[in-house]
Amino acid sequence: MINEDVFPVEPWQVRETRLDLSLLAQTESLFALSNGHIGLRGNLDEGEPYGLPGTYLNGFYEVRPLPYAEAGYGYPEAGQTVVNVTNGKVIRLLVDDEPFDVRYGEVLYHERVLDFRTGKLTRRTQWCSPAGKQVKVCSTRLVSLAQRSVAAIEYLVEALNKFVRITVQSELVANEDIPQSTGDPRVAAVLEHPLEAVEHEQIGRGALLIHRTKASGLMMAAAMDHEVEVPGRVEVSTDARADLARTTVICGLRPGQKLRIVKYLAYGWSSLRSRPALHDQVAAALTGARYSGWQGLLDAQRVYLEEFWDAADVEVEGGAECQQAVRFGMFHVLQASARAERRPIPAKGLTGSGYDGHTFWDTEMFVLPVLTYTAPQAVADVLRWRASTLKLAQQRAAQLGLNGARFPWRTIHGESCSSYWPAGTAAWHINADIAMAFERYRTVTGDQSVEKECGLKVLIETARLWVSLGHHDRHGIWHLDGVTGPDEYTAIVRDNVYTNLMAAHNLRAAADACARHPDAARALGVTTDEMAAWRNAASAVHIPYDEELGVHQQCDGFTTFAEWDFAVHNNYPLLLHEPYVRLYPAQVIKQADLVLAMHWQSHAFTLEQKARNVDYYERRTVRDSSLSACTQAVLCAEVGHLDLAHDYTHEAALTDLRDLHHNTRDGLHLASLAGTWIALVAGFGGLRDDQGVLALDPKLPDAFSRLRFRLRWRNFRLIVDATHTDTTYTLRDGGSGDTLTIRHAGKELTLNTCSPVTVPVRSCKPLLPRPPQPSGREPLHRRLAMDPECLS
Amino acid sequence: MINEDVFPVEPWQVRETRLDLSLLAQTESLFALSNGHIGLRGNLDEGEPYGLPGTYLNGFYEVRPLPYAEAGYGYPEAGQTVVNVTNGKVIRLLVDDEPFDVRYGEVLYHERVLDFRTGKLTRRTQWCSPAGKQVKVCSTRLVSLAQRSVAAIEYLVEALNKFVRITVQSELVANEDIPQSTGDPRVAAVLEHPLEAVEHEQIGRGALLIHRTKASGLMMAAAMDHEVEVPGRVEVSTDARADLARTTVICGLRPGQKLRIVKYLAYGWSSLRSRPALHDQVAAALTGARYSGWQGLLDAQRVYLEEFWDAADVEVEGGAECQQAVRFGMFHVLQASARAERRPIPAKGLTGSGYDGHTFWDTEMFVLPVLTYTAPQAVADVLRWRASTLKLAQQRAAQLGLNGARFPWRTIHGESCSSYWPAGTAAWHINADIAMAFERYRTVTGDQSVEKECGLKVLIETARLWVSLGHHDRHGIWHLDGVTGPDEYTAIVRDNVYTNLMAAHNLRAAADACARHPDAARALGVTTDEMAAWRNAASAVHIPYDEELGVHQQCDGFTTFAEWDFAVHNNYPLLLHEPYVRLYPAQVIKQADLVLAMHWQSHAFTLEQKARNVDYYERRTVRDSSLSACTQAVLCAEVGHLDLAHDYTHEAALTDLRDLHHNTRDGLHLASLAGTWIALVAGFGGLRDDQGVLALDPKLPDAFSRLRFRLRWRNFRLIVDATHTDTTYTLRDGGSGDTLTIRHAGKELTLNTCSPVTVPVRSCKPLLPRPPQPSGREPLHRRLAMDPECLS
Repeated sequence: MINEDVFPVEPWQVRETRLDLSLLAQTESLFALSNGHIGLRGNLDEGEPYGLPGTYLNGFYEVRPLPYAEAGYGYPEAGQTVVNVTNGKVIRLLVDDEPFDVRYGEVLYHERVLDFRTGKLTRRTQWCSPAGKQVKVCSTRLVSLAQRSVAAIEYLVEALNKFVRITVQSELVANEDIPQSTGDPRVAAVLEHPLEAVEHEQIGRGALLIHRTKASGLMMAAAMDHEVEVPGRVEVSTDARADLARTTVICGLRPGQKLRIVKYLAYGWSSLRSRPALHDQVAAALTGARYSGWQGLLDAQRVYLEEFWDAADVEVEGGAECQQAVRFGMFHVLQASARAERRPIPAKGLTGSGYDGHTFWDTEMFVLPVLTYTAPQAVADVLRWRASTLKLAQQRAAQLGLNGARFPWRTIHGESCSSYWPAGTAAWHINADIAMAFERYRTVTGDQSVEKECGLKVLIETARLWVSLGHHDRHGIWHLDGVTGPDEYTAIVRDNVYTNLMAAHNLRAAADACARHPDAARALGVTTDEMAAWRNAASAVHIPYDEELGVHQQCDGFTTFAEWDFAVHNNYPLLLHEPYVRLYPAQVIKQADLVLAMHWQSHAFTLEQKARNVDYYERRTVRDSSLSACTQAVLCAEVGHLDLAHDYTHEAALTDLRDLHHNTRDGLHLASLAGTWIALVAGFGGLRDDQGVLALDPKLPDAFSRLRFRLRWRNFRLIVDATHTDTTYTLRDGGSGDTLTIRHAGKELTLNTCSPVTVPVRSCKPLLPRPPQPSGREPLHRRLAMDPECLS
Repeated sequence: MINEDVFPVEPWQVRETRLDLSLLAQTESLFALSNGHIGLRGNLDEGEPYGLPGTYLNGFYEVRPLPYAEAGYGYPEAGQTVVNVTNGKVIRLLVDDEPFDVRYGEVLYHERVLDFRTGKLTRRTQWCSPAGKQVKVCSTRLVSLAQRSVAAIEYLVEALNKFVRITVQSELVANEDIPQSTGDPRVAAVLEHPLEAVEHEQIGRGALLIHRTKASGLMMAAAMDHEVEVPGRVEVSTDARADLARTTVICGLRPGQKLRIVKYLAYGWSSLRSRPALHDQVAAALTGARYSGWQGLLDAQRVYLEEFWDAADVEVEGGAECQQAVRFGMFHVLQASARAERRPIPAKGLTGSGYDGHTFWDTEMFVLPVLTYTAPQAVADVLRWRASTLKLAQQRAAQLGLNGARFPWRTIHGESCSSYWPAGTAAWHINADIAMAFERYRTVTGDQSVEKECGLKVLIETARLWVSLGHHDRHGIWHLDGVTGPDEYTAIVRDNVYTNLMAAHNLRAAADACARHPDAARALGVTTDEMAAWRNAASAVHIPYDEELGVHQQCDGFTTFAEWDFAVHNNYPLLLHEPYVRLYPAQVIKQADLVLAMHWQSHAFTLEQKARNVDYYERRTVRDSSLSACTQAVLCAEVGHLDLAHDYTHEAALTDLRDLHHNTRDGLHLASLAGTWIALVAGFGGLRDDQGVLALDPKLPDAFSRLRFRLRWRNFRLIVDATHTDTTYTLRDGGSGDTLTIRHAGKELTLNTCSPVTVPVRSCKPLLPRPPQPSGREPLHRRLAMDPECLS
């Protein structure tokens, strides 16, 4: 397992102090670099050993058939899978005749560092070849946040004890062998040899390769060039073939002498542009990289990140692991989104091929809420991407016999790729999640342009979907039947509270948006009758509540389902050991569902209802999804279980850093990475925005002495500095004397840009005692306390 | 389409008067011959043209992978598919040098007749070759009901206008090419080259081929031998190769001269026996066939059928189509079961490869009820087959985390083969259906031996399944959640009435059986506590009822689901045009479900409830399944809609004879064939047995002047002769003066073997007017009356 001995807890970096080959795949995910366009897994420079080789371009996918032994109407016939594209990371080294390979000879020193402020991955190794020659290798890798198409590697080799002949082979490799996936259904299907060679060319001290996918017909280009510095004689030659380009550097080094190579990489792809156009685009990007130079790229990277952290950093005093994790999470969230620019954010970013590289609701409900407060321009881009798929979503709705637009549960390009409809097509809530992401962006940033440009249409078309999907019963109550909410252990149900509240929000938001843009709405065929129907459905929506128990029902009848026998059936994750046919009708919950509703539709529940609901659902939630701990943290904090909230925060924080779900090898869990911020800021910070007002209500668990976070609201930046006793709000930007009225602990508070405001913390006593969890699913902190071996 | 012009309505046969190549596949199904062990589709002797070549051995299957794009725990990885085995039907004819092929030359006369009393298929053709030579060909084919492993063909060729050289090639062909299946998900997956050659040998004037399946490892043997009669010189030679054996007969015929060949076929297969043992078994069967001779086989066939019809015939005066159809249906039901002998009865018998050759609940709930009254020994064999799969069913239950036994929704060998669990694993009712089949057999025949031998164990293990699947809520009510009832357009629901009543019946039957066999029950670990728990669950079972509407709910909440818009969404069958995600939560019903419950659990509903329920569900049932019309006929008859019941009877009757579901090409619908009997005998005859008493209540629709049917009850045979005014019961067998008390029109009536009893018919006035059906789904008779083109 990944533990502190090897990965020390440090505030601004992740550092590996020993190379453990059994953790290679996991660390490749942790050390992945990306800018949202290019993604490079943290594979070793020399190409092997590897866990999973991975080089990705956002939106670049191949089509794969979706097989069905028993097919049904409306099942998508083709899926989409992220492709492992041409690998430009490979730099092989020969020391005399011996290939540098950590499995041979002796590794005298090893360190890898991912630095959140400089945005680079550094690897320092000292190696003794089987023949006794020692070298020091230091490679530094970055994927540029400033230059979207560019990545670069500085590769330094130093001879230590003897003269050595050094050969470096720097490569572009297409169609790498990738390992077969396991039997775990969540692991993405592996595609073999996805790329057809189109062109190969030597350019400068490097080469350019162009390839095309067979079925999806997308074209991509990868190019490399090199700067070489070395004291003595050196020979550099390049060979380019269809699937392999190689630049070879040969020289001799006396002890203390160094060879320095800077490898510039450029990537591009297009579904439209011609081969020459794509060729030139990537060649130009490569020229741009050389023009900036290695130092220029490093400097720009640092500047970009300084700007980001200034409005996004979260400081946790008294929680070193949370401190590291929240920055690690924010760094990866930024990497996944910074330069995505009208491409989706996949559930695993560009850090692995898990979930086929698909984007899910994770993006709208976990990643975008964080980015909206910290990097809103990235949110606008993702929203524009969604809107660009509207036509496909309309076609899908029509195919399903519905009005409006039905966005896909999982996709890369916009087509539905769900082969299991009960946890795909039936998960209608993603449409409301998308609508809410548009609304949240507008509310938090104050930017109306995205709504005008494309959001209005999305709101209208999703509203139309809901109205055609739902129905009023003979008493006028509005129902949504046959839906699957967030909890994937309870599917195809009636009146899932989360879905119903979110749909109602979608309907109201659409009606409000039409009222704001009456001409545009009229042009889209919206009548006052239609708007009235939306509001009518929203106000008549059924919210199941068990009067006897005094708790909400996750869905109709939920609290009367059979109880799950956790004493017997507790082999987690349950989906790998128990059939859906028994999971679905039992009171066993994969992930926060009703509890998630209480987060995003906070105003629809009283504090007492929240307390009772948390108490009820905590006992039945197994957290077999990484999209749960953070939400449980938020609600536990709200109802006063601060210690439990801290445990959940801790678990969300360590999901990938400690590989808690045993699948970090396939890529990072972006939602859970964002979730650490959510747990801290929405949980202990009390951030809510579901009524259009910035609401905060900080209260800290015993372990923390201070929580300081920054966020953007409209044209302001705000620093919230909370201790156990009071909170200080510092408003930045805006004009001098500008004010902002927020809600602090339920009461209005007006801030101004002249001076900070300090207010006392509202005391918080829980209504009910700390609830227990299902056997074996106590949050991590507790389990560690009780059984330090529990992670092994 | 198949219509009366070409297929005249005749009481004891199906006759085709013109060869229409576009109907070839359908007629191959209609003219299929079988004895439950061997199945021969009605392919033309000369092998082509064909719709679907088909030769089947009951239980002989190949394993196929079941693919999943998104897999889940407990999904079966391997399916089973019926294999098209070595084809022994092929007899090619050359007239001089011209192959006899109906697509060339001219067919001067064509007739095929399937005779229900002689059990043979006769084909008479007169053909003029392209060279102007005319021949008459008459072939007669049978699959012996008396000799299980034997089939035979008499092939006669007569020269008509000129001298001809005649060459006949009689073959055994393994691994025939079979056409690709269509995009219809219900069509069975096609397996190519399923057989590996093991042995080939020439024997006598014929040959023997042995093959083995690759994955399932089953071995089969097919053998042929020939008798040849011809006036002049004849040469006969045989050639045997791995996948083909051919006996060639050459002779010359002057006009009026005839060549007569009798081809004897023998088939066998085994999963256990050695190659030599299987070889000898089939060789012996072939010898047995020759020993009986053609006439001997014909005679035995007629005797077998006379005996059958004597206790099974149904006579309908005033309903010529129903008359033909009920006998056609009974004939095929007998063919599917007569000599199955501890093998399953597939949904399509051995008439085609549809549904992969699987057996479903169709057998227990539609086919066995008919056979129990007409050929009970076949029922005992099928029940023993089910019981022989108990171990697999127990393993499946354990895999699903449940107690007892979980029989497969679809299978050949006993393993679950359902790849779509919402309409497979969730269809728990099959377990109660099986239990009821055991109970019905015991009740109707009075034979306790099957229960003792294996039925008790099945009842106990299915009862254990139900108890572990269901749960008592906090008010003590017992629920079955997450189940799919018969209606496959409403799945994964709570408290399906059919399932709940059947499960309760299963639980009570198990407890009663244990009380009958206390020692055996104790040996199986049954305690009085366990029996009490069964009875307790049965008596606390929830039966959802809508007080406001005064109707039962097919499942919890059903009557409050959205109404389906039949005016817009009426492209039938809906499953090919509408997604499950919309079908499931709407009030649209594929097939009788609540209505089926009212048939088999008749006593659980008052007559008024039945009338209201029929009225409600008629309006919402689209009959996209062939397992519906007969049940609707039964209940419509009971509540007094005799004319509507007649329409449904008519539709059930014509399902295959007129190819109403457009898939008769893949094989016949055994359940619907049995359904004609059910509609007539349970519908107009009023037969019920759900309280252990033979209950009858005849009443005829206007169109019929008389309905006379025969059935077996305990050691009696009974003839029921009903007119519009009265019913005459004639009790046969038993000792002289033996009596039987039945229930006639709700009142006890004692019959005796001395003299018939005549009683008046109970008049029947419907409570409610005839209900309408969904647009476009009025039963056939009506639609024909309104629009004679509706079938085109």
